[in-house]
Amino acid sequence: MKIEQAYTIVCAPGRNFVTLKIVTEDGVYGIGDATLNGREMAVVAYLEEHVLPALIGRDASCIEDIWQYLYRGAYWRRGPVTMAAIGAVDVALWDIKAKVANMPLYQLLGGRSRERVMTYAHCTGKDIDGCLQEVERHVAQGYRAVRVQAGIPGIPTIYGVAKREGERYEPADSELPAEHVWSTEKYLNHVPQLFAAVREQFGHDLHLLHDVHHRLTPIEAARLGKAVEPYHLFWLEDCVPAENQESLRLIREHTTTPLAIGEVFNSIHDYREMIQNQWIDYIRTPLSHGGGITHMRRVADFAALYHIRTGFHGPTDLSPVCLGAAIHFDSWVPNFGIQEYMPHDDLTLQVFSHDFRFEDGHFIVGEAPGHGVDIDESLAAQYPWKRASLPVNRLEDGTLWHW
Amino acid sequence: MKIEQAYTIVCAPGRNFVTLKIVTEDGVYGIGDATLNGREMAVVAYLEEHVLPALIGRDASCIEDIWQYLYRGAYWRRGPVTMAAIGAVDVALWDIKAKVANMPLYQLLGGRSRERVMTYAHCTGKDIDGCLQEVERHVAQGYRAVRVQAGIPGIPTIYGVAKREGERYEPADSELPAEHVWSTEKYLNHVPQLFAAVREQFGHDLHLLHDVHHRLTPIEAARLGKAVEPYHLFWLEDCVPAENQESLRLIREHTTTPLAIGEVFNSIHDYREMIQNQWIDYIRTPLSHGGGITHMRRVADFAALYHIRTGFHGPTDLSPVCLGAAIHFDSWVPNFGIQEYMPHDDLTLQVFSHDFRFEDGHFIVGEAPGHGVDIDESLAAQYPWKRASLPVNRLEDGTLWHW
Amino acid sequence: MKIEQAYTIVCAPGRNFVTLKIVTEDGVYGIGDATLNGREMAVVAYLEEHVLPALIGRDASCIEDIWQYLYRGAYWRRGPVTMAAIGAVDVALWDIKAKVANMPLYQLLGGRSRERVMTYAHCTGKDIDGCLQEVERHVAQGYRAVRVQAGIPGIPTIYGVAKREGERYEPADSELPAEHVWSTEKYLNHVPQLFAAVREQFGHDLHLLHDVHHRLTPIEAARLGKAVEPYHLFWLEDCVPAENQESLRLIREHTTTPLAIGEVFNSIHDYREMIQNQWIDYIRTPLSHGGGITHMRRVADFAALYHIRTGFHGPTDLSPVCLGAAIHFDSWVPNFGIQEYMPHDDLTLQVFSHDFRFEDGHFIVGEAPGHGVDIDESLAAQYPWKRASLPVNRLEDGTLWHW
Amino acid sequence: MKIEQAYTIVCAPGRNFVTLKIVTEDGVYGIGDATLNGREMAVVAYLEEHVLPALIGRDASCIEDIWQYLYRGAYWRRGPVTMAAIGAVDVALWDIKAKVANMPLYQLLGGRSRERVMTYAHCTGKDIDGCLQEVERHVAQGYRAVRVQAGIPGIPTIYGVAKREGERYEPADSELPAEHVWSTEKYLNHVPQLFAAVREQFGHDLHLLHDVHHRLTPIEAARLGKAVEPYHLFWLEDCVPAENQESLRLIREHTTTPLAIGEVFNSIHDYREMIQNQWIDYIRTPLSHGGGITHMRRVADFAALYHIRTGFHGPTDLSPVCLGAAIHFDSWVPNFGIQEYMPHDDLTLQVFSHDFRFEDGHFIVGEAPGHGVDIDESLAAQYPWKRASLPVNRLEDGTLWHW
Repeated sequence: MKIEQAYTIVCAPGRNFVTLKIVTEDGVYGIGDATLNGREMAVVAYLEEHVLPALIGRDASCIEDIWQYLYRGAYWRRGPVTMAAIGAVDVALWDIKAKVANMPLYQLLGGRSRERVMTYAHCTGKDIDGCLQEVERHVAQGYRAVRVQAGIPGIPTIYGVAKREGERYEPADSELPAEHVWSTEKYLNHVPQLFAAVREQFGHDLHLLHDVHHRLTPIEAARLGKAVEPYHLFWLEDCVPAENQESLRLIREHTTTPLAIGEVFNSIHDYREMIQNQWIDYIRTPLSHGGGITHMRRVADFAALYHIRTGFHGPTDLSPVCLGAAIHFDSWVPNFGIQEYMPHDDLTLQVFSHDFRFEDGHFIVGEAPGHGVDIDESLAAQYPWKRASLPVNRLEDGTLWHW
Repeated sequence: MKIEQAYTIVCAPGRNFVTLKIVTEDGVYGIGDATLNGREMAVVAYLEEHVLPALIGRDASCIEDIWQYLYRGAYWRRGPVTMAAIGAVDVALWDIKAKVANMPLYQLLGGRSRERVMTYAHCTGKDIDGCLQEVERHVAQGYRAVRVQAGIPGIPTIYGVAKREGERYEPADSELPAEHVWSTEKYLNHVPQLFAAVREQFGHDLHLLHDVHHRLTPIEAARLGKAVEPYHLFWLEDCVPAENQESLRLIREHTTTPLAIGEVFNSIHDYREMIQNQWIDYIRTPLSHGGGITHMRRVADFAALYHIRTGFHGPTDLSPVCLGAAIHFDSWVPNFGIQEYMPHDDLTLQVFSHDFRFEDGHFIVGEAPGHGVDIDESLAAQYPWKRASLPVNRLEDGTLWHW
Repeated sequence: MKIEQAYTIVCAPGRNFVTLKIVTEDGVYGIGDATLNGREMAVVAYLEEHVLPALIGRDASCIEDIWQYLYRGAYWRRGPVTMAAIGAVDVALWDIKAKVANMPLYQLLGGRSRERVMTYAHCTGKDIDGCLQEVERHVAQGYRAVRVQAGIPGIPTIYGVAKREGERYEPADSELPAEHVWSTEKYLNHVPQLFAAVREQFGHDLHLLHDVHHRLTPIEAARLGKAVEPYHLFWLEDCVPAENQESLRLIREHTTTPLAIGEVFNSIHDYREMIQNQWIDYIRTPLSHGGGITHMRRVADFAALYHIRTGFHGPTDLSPVCLGAAIHFDSWVPNFGIQEYMPHDDLTLQVFSHDFRFEDGHFIVGEAPGHGVDIDESLAAQYPWKRASLPVNRLEDGTLWHW
Repeated sequence: MKIEQAYTIVCAPGRNFVTLKIVTEDGVYGIGDATLNGREMAVVAYLEEHVLPALIGRDASCIEDIWQYLYRGAYWRRGPVTMAAIGAVDVALWDIKAKVANMPLYQLLGGRSRERVMTYAHCTGKDIDGCLQEVERHVAQGYRAVRVQAGIPGIPTIYGVAKREGERYEPADSELPAEHVWSTEKYLNHVPQLFAAVREQFGHDLHLLHDVHHRLTPIEAARLGKAVEPYHLFWLEDCVPAENQESLRLIREHTTTPLAIGEVFNSIHDYREMIQNQWIDYIRTPLSHGGGITHMRRVADFAALYHIRTGFHGPTDLSPVCLGAAIHFDSWVPNFGIQEYMPHDDLTLQVFSHDFRFEDGHFIVGEAPGHGVDIDESLAAQYPWKRASLPVNRLEDGTLWHW
């Protein structure tokens, strides 16, 4: 079953997406998501100029061999661009294999382990009241878990809030990076109040999550983790930048608040120390950025050995292709935790058809062969890519800070 | 795809085997090997009385859920009997899934990573000369790797040598355990001479392996590892009993001779410390004893993170079903090392048909859907089980020693 | 003193039990408990088909040699089935030796270290009030220590509560595993309230224990341990599944609540890391599942080196034989902690006679030669075994969870 | 001093190179090397589409802020593509700053610490004799240090040997990856003989280096390290793939042969464990791939804390821009070790002018302001890029192996 054709489709139905399509000589095709938010064209070039020409003529069923060919054989390993490219190839090949087997993808992974996939929604307000309203709205929709964030008095820009009321929030909101302001102290003083308010109104059964977006040092994160213990979070996410994995150790020594990390990781090696030492509780890397199903299965299995669960990243900059594949993975993986869900724009959903369903705060996996997501290429062609960048953060004195 | 029937087939075509057959409502069936040498009937009872009744009516495609149901849900975890029972169920279910997908099993694992599977043969002599002749015979057959063992002057019984000349070697050679004699000092003094002789006659390109059969203490194993460094072994196997995984640390600190272990392990937890600390180089647990494909895939992937490879156990007491499934696994697994191969009796091969091929010291995986091994039940019925036990060892003073 | 006869007695006077009887040529006999709840027949087959034939003719006084013969000599080591079989043989042999010496068993262990053996009772209610009533009832009976558990609002099934009011609680309550529902979050929110209520009503002198039944991850267990610190528990039991012993490390770093574990362990190796690193406070393995007196004495002695005490498992699925032997062990062992006690059914006690006494929340060991428990075989024959299974747990989304 | 223009120049004078040119409003410009061998166009896209537009208008003198803006601010961190892009920007900005200061670059780093920079040459032969001739030729040229590699009997392709005699060796030698064959065993048996021959002919004063090119497991590397101890190497390079940094620990425990690593690393985090634990002796990452001078200065300073020295990568796929900047760095850095030198093609040197000198096996840094290397853009335009790929390795059974 040789690969006859492989090409990327770059489009922007609502926002930028890069999609990889691999077609075999038998006409079976698979789809992978190659979107790397704000760095899309690097992945396109990586694939088009360097990877795809080498795939033509290879056997599409040799997924493991192709994975190793692109990773182990490539001299240059790891990194967001490389692993997003490999991830797109891998997901497309699993899509093909499942179609050939005439099975939904989850069957090839080992079958279903659960009936439905719990998600969490983003509830972000300009202030605590705004956040509470968002929580109320989502709880009414059936969500069992919400990520709560609120604007912080004295910090002008609010991560996670739409620019204009009534619009969807989109972080990559300008051609060149916007510059936001950050104050750790104001943030740290404010967050516990947010959680106190949410727990008071909604009680203790609702799962609460929070995203720190890498803006603290380890000892500050430890302070925050302890401060929110009375509100027992489902997780505290991305407390610190974590290239130095030992950063997590310090936090862990001080708090029992569960920790999630990894939406910017791309390799099992980014996790090794923190998994092996039980410094975290949830892994966040999405399939598309983590080298696909072949690699993320290894990460999830490794994590399970230490009681660590999955909590895959799920923002709108991951296309429905990545989300669809994730729902198959989530339906199988024994150590599933939760799936992030930030609904796509209607335009996006017109371009990308899918067969998974969402109801009552959960996803239900589809039964179509493959991962069940496809792209309408001619419609996609109507929405050309244009540069969009994520913001950067600066401290109040101008210091460039983590975003 | 509900399970309609599940039963064990106990037979002894040449030696004892326990085979599990699972049949779905659609008539598709899968085969698993449940043989636990010398403890066969405990696995039969475990399956027949406690596991199989609970499988009827379950969805055969939910392999992961059934695995967790039998392991996580069962209160009593791990151990040779439990894991052999789970392994038989798991391999049978993967056989079914691959048949339904109309694919050879290796395709579901991720496709082929190699053209053929290197094996090693047993070359055992009553003395060094006898061993050299065996090596010569196997090299002539195309083997690239041989396990060399020789009788030790002063020790009457020789592990790995047939009772009567011209017969196959069978360790489980009597109804009740035979009692062998062991002398560590005689063994340690003799082994380096064996390797010197083999290297002198066959040069340095042939892979040489050796099995210590758990009979040394760590510091004795360290001495042996150092002593054979000039003959650079492919591996030194089962140097010490390893329930205390730290035993391996001491050996590792003293020698660069590669270490293999695990033919009596049954869980990833038996390996955790030694893998995580890089104390070993090859994992030995066969699919059937290690909870099947679902679990051994996790062990192999975990091992890969630390540059550790597979070297699956392959004696004749693992039925052709286990060997067939292993060849699929070996053909896929990226960190494959080697496959042990001890040819089955002709009678065994009449009862168990298979589609893998052996040539030039290697296995070539078959292309039939599933794992490619089947059992002729009516022929099997002609060879009833009879009790056969492995021997025990005693030191020269009578002390019960490791076998 | 050769062994002339050895056989198992399978019966169900109230519930299933497997009993091993070993008879010497002199007519002295010993009794061991071989019950493995829900896996009984695997142990029966292990003994009848593979172990007992090899015991005939051996010297019953060579307890150590027989233990090593069955463990070290058997190639397949550890695991619940193997160790339960060895445990039954070992207890029966110690029973014989004590009878031959004309001494109660504790004398052979080193004599009595205490006058009586403190026990703890199960106090389980459908809700907190129901639990408080149970505590009151047991305190009135003289108990100094109680295990408190209560139904959790929102979780339909309650571990430890009888199906019908007025009946005894029996976990193995159906032919095939019942499926229970579990919610970690509801449980974690509820437990501290239970302890607050108990302490308020009964003050701080009563020993309080709690069993988590392996249902938490390490960080969740750490949260629970911290949350109940104000109520200073005697112990928190089985917080996490512990095949990965490092799981205990994380809990230990966060709380001073004492930790007990091990009712599903069967080997000193299951404990090594956690004892050596002082991550636990009590060992729970019963004599019958832990390879008998010969092996559990070693575990207890090793534990003592790190200030860890015994707290043997004592549910009704351990027969009076196991309990009787445990009371001898408890009376001797210097690092005794507590003995679990869940009274047997009257029918059970008719079949199994015993000479230990229970008064004022304590056991008093008997003075009959041996361990003082016997079986009425003809009465036993009236209650044939029938399959009974422990339940499994599923999370609310259907995920198979730890039971 | 605002950046007015920034663009990449892609050319292939002899081989592919990507060069970044940044021009300020004052007309001062700086040059950086953005070549990532075999993945060039991914870096071009990363720069052109995502990074360069955001640089226009920024102050070129804010090197640190721009570095943090591109690394810390960019959400996606690390990886070969990202860090090569940042490295090109950083080196170009340092070139500008030095030109504005009217100083050679080394002055801004802290001034010269040595008169000249020791290099090592590649001496590769089809066999040992061929290698010896190459050593002789280089020693005659004044080299104090040589890297020796030789073809291995039985392995058809030889890493480091030109395809056709008389031609330069170029690893990226075909449009799509060539597939080479690898045999660890043949290699390990052969290497010690090579060193024995070199030492016998050239004595013990010549520095000998060797590159394993990531093809061993840790225990195999440990064996090799021990085996070549009598020939005391200057270093053994890239013994193992090192995403799992602990791999180095095992090697280190067994041998005193100095270890170099890092030509495929791109971040201080790739080194942290191995530097902090003293598992290596030389860091290899070139400035261009390691995020430029700003970042590699930190790596070198951190290494110095543990007695570790620099040994920068220097193949022909790093353009003269990277080499020129490295010679400035080498002239300053207190813990300098050695500089790899593989002379560029004449065509390359026509396009890239430079002011460093090579004599007697050493480089002497130039005194021109900046780093002293420039590009002739119109000449470059005559040599358009065409796809060229590095090979991959396969074991003899077809397994994809490390290249």
